[in-house]
Amino acid sequence: METEKLIAAARGAEEADLVFRNANLVNVFSNEVYLTDVAIVEDRVAGIGPGYKGRQEIDLGGRYLCPGYIDAHVHIESSMVPPREFARVVIPHGVTTVVSDPHEIANVLGLEGIRFMLQDAKYGPLGMFVDAPSCVPATNMETSGSQLEFYDLATLLNNPWVIGLGEVMNYPGVVYGDRRVLQKIKAYEGKPIDGHAPGVRGTELNAYIAAGVGSDHECVDLDEAMEKLRRGMTIFIREATGAKNLAALQGLFTPATIDRVCLCTDDRHPHDLIDHGSVNFIIRSAIANGADPLLAIRAATLNPARYFGLNDRGAIAPGRRADLLVFSDLRNPQPEMVYYGGKLAAQNGQMMQWEQPSQNTKARGSINVRLDKLNFNIPAASGQVRVIEAIADQLVTNSLVMPALVEDGMAIADPSRDLAKLAVVERHFGTGNVGLGFIKGLGLKQGAIAGTVAHDHHNIVVAGIDDASMALAVKEIVAMQGGMVVVGPHGVLATLPLPIAGLMSDKPIGVVRQQYDALIAALKPLGCALEDPFMALSFMALPVIPSLKLTDLGLVDVEKFSLTNLFV
Amino acid sequence: METEKLIAAARGAEEADLVFRNANLVNVFSNEVYLTDVAIVEDRVAGIGPGYKGRQEIDLGGRYLCPGYIDAHVHIESSMVPPREFARVVIPHGVTTVVSDPHEIANVLGLEGIRFMLQDAKYGPLGMFVDAPSCVPATNMETSGSQLEFYDLATLLNNPWVIGLGEVMNYPGVVYGDRRVLQKIKAYEGKPIDGHAPGVRGTELNAYIAAGVGSDHECVDLDEAMEKLRRGMTIFIREATGAKNLAALQGLFTPATIDRVCLCTDDRHPHDLIDHGSVNFIIRSAIANGADPLLAIRAATLNPARYFGLNDRGAIAPGRRADLLVFSDLRNPQPEMVYYGGKLAAQNGQMMQWEQPSQNTKARGSINVRLDKLNFNIPAASGQVRVIEAIADQLVTNSLVMPALVEDGMAIADPSRDLAKLAVVERHFGTGNVGLGFIKGLGLKQGAIAGTVAHDHHNIVVAGIDDASMALAVKEIVAMQGGMVVVGPHGVLATLPLPIAGLMSDKPIGVVRQQYDALIAALKPLGCALEDPFMALSFMALPVIPSLKLTDLGLVDVEKFSLTNLFV
Repeated sequence: METEKLIAAARGAEEADLVFRNANLVNVFSNEVYLTDVAIVEDRVAGIGPGYKGRQEIDLGGRYLCPGYIDAHVHIESSMVPPREFARVVIPHGVTTVVSDPHEIANVLGLEGIRFMLQDAKYGPLGMFVDAPSCVPATNMETSGSQLEFYDLATLLNNPWVIGLGEVMNYPGVVYGDRRVLQKIKAYEGKPIDGHAPGVRGTELNAYIAAGVGSDHECVDLDEAMEKLRRGMTIFIREATGAKNLAALQGLFTPATIDRVCLCTDDRHPHDLIDHGSVNFIIRSAIANGADPLLAIRAATLNPARYFGLNDRGAIAPGRRADLLVFSDLRNPQPEMVYYGGKLAAQNGQMMQWEQPSQNTKARGSINVRLDKLNFNIPAASGQVRVIEAIADQLVTNSLVMPALVEDGMAIADPSRDLAKLAVVERHFGTGNVGLGFIKGLGLKQGAIAGTVAHDHHNIVVAGIDDASMALAVKEIVAMQGGMVVVGPHGVLATLPLPIAGLMSDKPIGVVRQQYDALIAALKPLGCALEDPFMALSFMALPVIPSLKLTDLGLVDVEKFSLTNLFV
Repeated sequence: METEKLIAAARGAEEADLVFRNANLVNVFSNEVYLTDVAIVEDRVAGIGPGYKGRQEIDLGGRYLCPGYIDAHVHIESSMVPPREFARVVIPHGVTTVVSDPHEIANVLGLEGIRFMLQDAKYGPLGMFVDAPSCVPATNMETSGSQLEFYDLATLLNNPWVIGLGEVMNYPGVVYGDRRVLQKIKAYEGKPIDGHAPGVRGTELNAYIAAGVGSDHECVDLDEAMEKLRRGMTIFIREATGAKNLAALQGLFTPATIDRVCLCTDDRHPHDLIDHGSVNFIIRSAIANGADPLLAIRAATLNPARYFGLNDRGAIAPGRRADLLVFSDLRNPQPEMVYYGGKLAAQNGQMMQWEQPSQNTKARGSINVRLDKLNFNIPAASGQVRVIEAIADQLVTNSLVMPALVEDGMAIADPSRDLAKLAVVERHFGTGNVGLGFIKGLGLKQGAIAGTVAHDHHNIVVAGIDDASMALAVKEIVAMQGGMVVVGPHGVLATLPLPIAGLMSDKPIGVVRQQYDALIAALKPLGCALEDPFMALSFMALPVIPSLKLTDLGLVDVEKFSLTNLFV
C-alpha cells in the first residue's frame, strides 16, 4: 500500500476500510487489555483510538481483538499437505504467520522443493516465511535426494520470504568447528540462526551459541531451558505431535523470562491440526496450566515477530499488518473471526472463500526406483543378527543381538518373536540401493507396511513378514508416486498417496486424515503393537537418533556414528 | 576474530585470554544476578560458567560484572569535543556504545561532517554508531551549510556503522505526508527510524507511527509515554543538560513496560559529562528513585542493542563483545573497571592509555564570513519592534512588541529595559546575510557575546549592546575559526575556540570546560540574568521552537512558521 494513503487514514483524514469499535485490545507492548477502536486500511492497521470512520464498522461489544499468532518453527510437510492447504487448517485456529523449515522436501527435491513451498504459499491466506534448511542431508550414511551446501543456501538470501537459517541440527559440527557447517552460518550472518541442541549444556552450549545460533526448540526441562535462556538463546516451546515440552517448560511464562520465549509446533500431523490446531493450542494449554494469558499470547505474537525481525506484524499497531483475531474469552481464546491482511479469512472455525489464482504449483515426480533390482534376500552370514527394537512413543531405539531365523540359507522374519524384516529402498536416483535388517516391536504378524516419509532422506522404508508383501508394498508406492501403504496376505489393504515429493497429498487435509485413519485400521488385523506404526517407521531410518537405525546404505550404529554389519 | 578460534575457546579446548572468576553476573536476559565465571577471548565473551582457564585470571570476589552501557541517542557535538575525546570522558562512566546523530555537524559540513565523525570515532575505545540525520536543514527559513536529501542519506546506507535514520523532527511533514520526508524514511526502510514528536498524540501519533517511526525521546510525562509505548514505540528516557525527563517517566521501570524502554542523553555539556557522566547517571538516578537495578540496567544494555539490531553487544553472552563493567554496589553502580572489546579501557574513573594511530582526522574550515559586509545598523522603519524574550531554563521564547529606542534614525539596544541587539551572521557561504533583531532577558549591560553554536544551522549568533562590540565578537570568532567569545568595553575578555566545524574543540574536554567556565565568569561583570546565556543564545536561532526566533534571513514567527518583520 502507498504510505501516503496509510498516513492519511491514520490521521483520520480519509475513511478507513474497516473500523472495529469497542474492541478489548490485547496490547502485547504494554501487556494490557483495554477498550478502544481500531481502524484498518487495506491490509494494515491505520490507527488505534477514537477519531475514525470506516466504510465497514464492526462493533465488537467488548470482545477481544488480538494479533494473529505466529508459529516460530514448523515443518509443514508433517501436515502431509502443501502450504496452501496447510493454511486452510491453521488460519481458522488463528495462526496467520508461520516460519517454516522445509527440510523434508529439501531432502527430496533440494532447492526446487523449497521453491515449490514458497510458490505454493503465495496463494494462501497465511504468511509463510522460510528458514533455509541447514542440514541436508542429515548425515553421509544415507542417500538423500539433495545436498545443500552454503553456496546453495546463499542463492535463497535475496528472497524476502527467506528470513533465516533453519535448525542447525549438526550441533557437534558447530561445537567442533566443522567448516561446512560454519560456512552456512556465516552465509546467514545477521539473520536469525535457529538451533536444535537437545541436551547440549555447559561449555558445548557456549560454543554452539558463540557460533551464532540464537534459538532452541529442543529443551525438555526448565533447567536446560534456563541455562540456554541465560546465555541469550530464545527458547521455542514446542508441542509437536510426537514431542511435547509445554508442561516441562510452563515455568518460562514469567514476566522476567517471557521476553525470550516463543511457541512452535515443529511437526504436527493432520489429526492434531484439525482437532486442536497449532500454536493456538499451546496458548490455551499454557493458560489452562496457569500462565497469564497476556504472556502466553505474547510468546506467539510479538516475541517471534521480534526474534525474526518481522516488524510488520506481531502486534496491533499503526502500520503493522491487520492480521487479527476476535475471541470472547481471554482465558480460553477460541478465534471467532480471523483477519489476514485486513480481510476476513475464517469465521467460527471455518475458512472463508479465498481467492485462488488459476496458476497451480506443481512439484516434479520424486520416485525413481529400480524395481528390477528389488531384492529383499538376506543371505545368512552367521547365526546372530543385530535387531532394531522400536520403543512405544519414543524415537530412540534399542540395539539388540538375536539369533537369526534361517531358511534355505536366508535370514527371514520371525513373527513368533515379533521380528519383522526391515528394508530401506533408495528412491531418488534409482541406484537400486536396498538396506536390509530386522525390527522388533512392531507387532506385525503378516503382510507389510511401507512409506516414503522416512526422516530425513525420505527413501522408501518397508517392514514386512514376507518378501512378496514387501515387494508389493514398494510397487504400490511406486505406482502412486509416493505415500503409505498396508499390504495384507491378499494384497493391498489401504493406501495414502503422497504424490508431492512422497511427503504431501494433493487432497484436502480432511481426506488425508481419513486415509491415514484407514491405514491404521487396516493394520489392526495384521497385528500392530504400536499406536502409530507409520510414525515409528518414519524414524527407523534417521541415523542421528540412537541407537540402531537403517538407511539405504545399511545398518547404522548411531552411537559410533558409522555403518555396521547386520550379522555379528 | 576467527569463528573457529572463538568456538574452540568457548568449548574450553583453548585457553582464554582472560577469565573473570567469582563474578556476580548481571544477566539482562533472565533479569538475575548470580555468581559465575566468564571467559574472554580477544574482543569477545567466549563462555560463561565453569571449565575455563585464562592467560590472565581476575578474581572479582563477588563484584558485579555488567554489560557495557549503550546511549541510545546522543549528539556528540554538544560535548564540544569530537568522538575520540568524547570517548575518553564517557568510557570511565561505563558507556561503551553510543548511537549518535551528527546532525549538528551535518548542518555545517554535510556528508563530510558525518564522515569526519565516523573517521574520528574509529580510533577511540567506544562503539560509535550513527543515525543518519533526517532533518538537515531544520527549516527553509535559515541558511545552513548543507542540505541532505534522501539520495544523500542513501549514500551512507552501506556503512556498517550507520544503523538507522536520526530523529525525524519534522513530524508535521510526516503526519501530512511531505514527500521529501517520506522519501528519507523509505530510503531507510527496515532500519530503525528514530522519532522526535513532542506532545504528538492521538490520530497524529498514529500517522507518525504508521509512517514507520519507531522511537521517541521527547516524552515529558508518563501519560504521553504510555500512549506512545502502547502503539509500539520504544521510549528513550532522556536526561540531557537542558531537558530532563527521568523523574516524569520513572513509572516506565516496571516488568510490563521495561522491554520497550531505552536511556539516552541527547545533549550533554562538558561539565555534566565530567561530573555525572552519561547514561550511567540515568541508571543511578533511576535506581535512587526506586527502580529495580536490573530493569534500569537493561534499559541501557539489552534494550538499545535489540532496538538497533546490535546483536553483538548489550549482554554478557557467548559470542558477544566483551564490553564489560565491574562495580561493587548494584544499588549505586560506579564502574571500577571498564572493558572495551576485552581490553581494560578505564579504571576507577580514569581512562587507560589507549593506542592512538598516527593518522589524525581533520575537518575542513567552516567559517566563511564577509567581514566587509558586516553591518548591524537597524534603520528605524517605525516606533515599535518585535522583541524575543528569553525565558530562564526554557528553549521557548515569548514574542513581545515594544517601543524602539531610536538614535540617529537607527533602532539600538536599550540596557535600561534589558534590550540587547541580536544578530545572526551567515557563516557557511559568505553570503553576507545578517539577520537583525532585539532580545530581552539576557541581562547584558555592556559588550557582546557571540558563538557559532546556533541550532541547527550554526551560523554566528551575537548579542550586544553596541555595534562595535558585536563586530569585534564576530571578528574574534572568524579569527579562531569558530567558537564562543565574550567582549567587554575594552576588548575580548574570554574565548572558547571551537575550530572543528565551529562546534567542537581540538583540546581535551577538561580544558573546554575550563574555557567555558571562564566565559561565564567573564560575562558576570557585563551583567547576565541567565545561568548559561550561551546555551540560551544557541537556541535563539532555532525556528522550530516557539514563539519568536531569529535566523540569518530575519525574524521567524514560529507559530505561523514564516518570516516576519522586525518593525510592527
